[in-house]
Amino acid sequence: MRFKTKLRETISENRSCLCVGLDPNLDLIPPLVLQQFERKTEAVTFFLKRVIDATHKHCAAYKPNLGFFEALGADGWDVFKEILDYIPDEKILIADAKRGDISSTAEHYAKAFFDIFDVDAVTLNPLMGFETLDPFLDYSNKGIFVLTLTSNPGSADFLARPTGDYDTLAAYIADQLRIKQKSSTTDIGMVLGATKAHKLEHIFDRFPDGSLLIPGIGKQGGSVKELVDALHNHKGLALVNSSRSIIFAGNQTDQWQKAISQKAKEMKANLAPLVDKYV
Amino acid sequence: MRFKTKLRETISENRSCLCVGLDPNLDLIPPLVLQQFERKTEAVTFFLKRVIDATHKHCAAYKPNLGFFEALGADGWDVFKEILDYIPDEKILIADAKRGDISSTAEHYAKAFFDIFDVDAVTLNPLMGFETLDPFLDYSNKGIFVLTLTSNPGSADFLARPTGDYDTLAAYIADQLRIKQKSSTTDIGMVLGATKAHKLEHIFDRFPDGSLLIPGIGKQGGSVKELVDALHNHKGLALVNSSRSIIFAGNQTDQWQKAISQKAKEMKANLAPLVDKYV
Repeated sequence: MRFKTKLRETISENRSCLCVGLDPNLDLIPPLVLQQFERKTEAVTFFLKRVIDATHKHCAAYKPNLGFFEALGADGWDVFKEILDYIPDEKILIADAKRGDISSTAEHYAKAFFDIFDVDAVTLNPLMGFETLDPFLDYSNKGIFVLTLTSNPGSADFLARPTGDYDTLAAYIADQLRIKQKSSTTDIGMVLGATKAHKLEHIFDRFPDGSLLIPGIGKQGGSVKELVDALHNHKGLALVNSSRSIIFAGNQTDQWQKAISQKAKEMKANLAPLVDKYV
Repeated sequence: MRFKTKLRETISENRSCLCVGLDPNLDLIPPLVLQQFERKTEAVTFFLKRVIDATHKHCAAYKPNLGFFEALGADGWDVFKEILDYIPDEKILIADAKRGDISSTAEHYAKAFFDIFDVDAVTLNPLMGFETLDPFLDYSNKGIFVLTLTSNPGSADFLARPTGDYDTLAAYIADQLRIKQKSSTTDIGMVLGATKAHKLEHIFDRFPDGSLLIPGIGKQGGSVKELVDALHNHKGLALVNSSRSIIFAGNQTDQWQKAISQKAKEMKANLAPLVDKYV
């Protein structure tokens, strides 16, 4: 099944565009959880499984962020694998890896995420050139989300800079991805930060049916209503990611699992207008 | 000890600017090695240890490339750790990770590479903005090498594009890194591809004392003589990396370890004019 088809079906079945970001920051995991385990890796594994239990009814996708797993050392990758196995099969799995490298290294990253860990999609960084995407583009059941515009202040340094005839480097990337999609069997999408949703419209125009992975809702301050308005004319599917504001809800209380579930439910409800558009 | 100090001393003690890239591509590892082991991870571990045995007299640094380790699955990180431990203490260790992410993710990547794996330096990708470097900049004994210009054709897509008042995005990055260095306790360097060394001079001008990590010598076709000429006026230290052309020398023969040693020795000799400049 094409990635986009699975994405549409998953959004439809769950009636949700929500992607839950799994960023197991040890400083924010409920102290009550950390106290129960001797080893950090055990605490993280337990915590993330409970996050999945508490959210799977409300979301379409999970996005583990590799930085937090790598910070656990070599064992972090075993945790990553165990968590991937724990996520229900029908969910979309996105490895937030932001990899970007050339030739045989890129081939090995593609192999790692698509063949070995077998996730549905991976986030990629295109800075070294669009050829770095090529090893990922021959997988008919997979997707890539390419960093296009992010919502942090530093996006002004590169992605929001004007370049050549384009208003922003982001618009240039979107344009090139649209062209790249024509010769790719893998579905190509974009990571677009949502803090200022109206600034995304010039990018949608360049790649009108690209799938979207949208962080920046929740803790990073983006408004859901603005986002839904901005997406009005876009023909691609959007997953809206929230990490910290869901998974660390209630982390100072003994009701943390309930708080996580509640927060995910709320986010799902906020995003309902998007779902109505897709199904 | 400051990273730059260790770098200068290591180059001086080894009389070598050579960095050996550890890219354990299973398709290129000597078949005689692969046949000896049931598990790929064991074959890779054995092979890389023999590479280190065969090259450590000739180089100043090793640069394991994470893509190849990740492609081994979760066990690849145990191999990475075992190889780091095997490399003689006095060598410079560079994790070729090309990571780039924001806020707490970047903090976790910094923790992973500098605290947990304890390498001397890491390669970083600045696309999401210069703030992504910040979590790496508070380590007085570490270094970062930031992707500035690469030697692959795709460098034309971003890094070699003109931007604002700069001839290339690479020159802009170099300029910003020079400014960033003023408030950083970590030593900041650049990854500069050497296929066309004369194209690097406008970048050296922007950051005249930045350390350099230079791939693209050997298999990628850069000329050592051109590189040495181009570096004539640059005040920073340069490590010149070669991966495939060294570690897979003689891979189809039973004399592969000898061939690796011979190739590393040759590369070291070719780079002698650079060493003479630094010591």
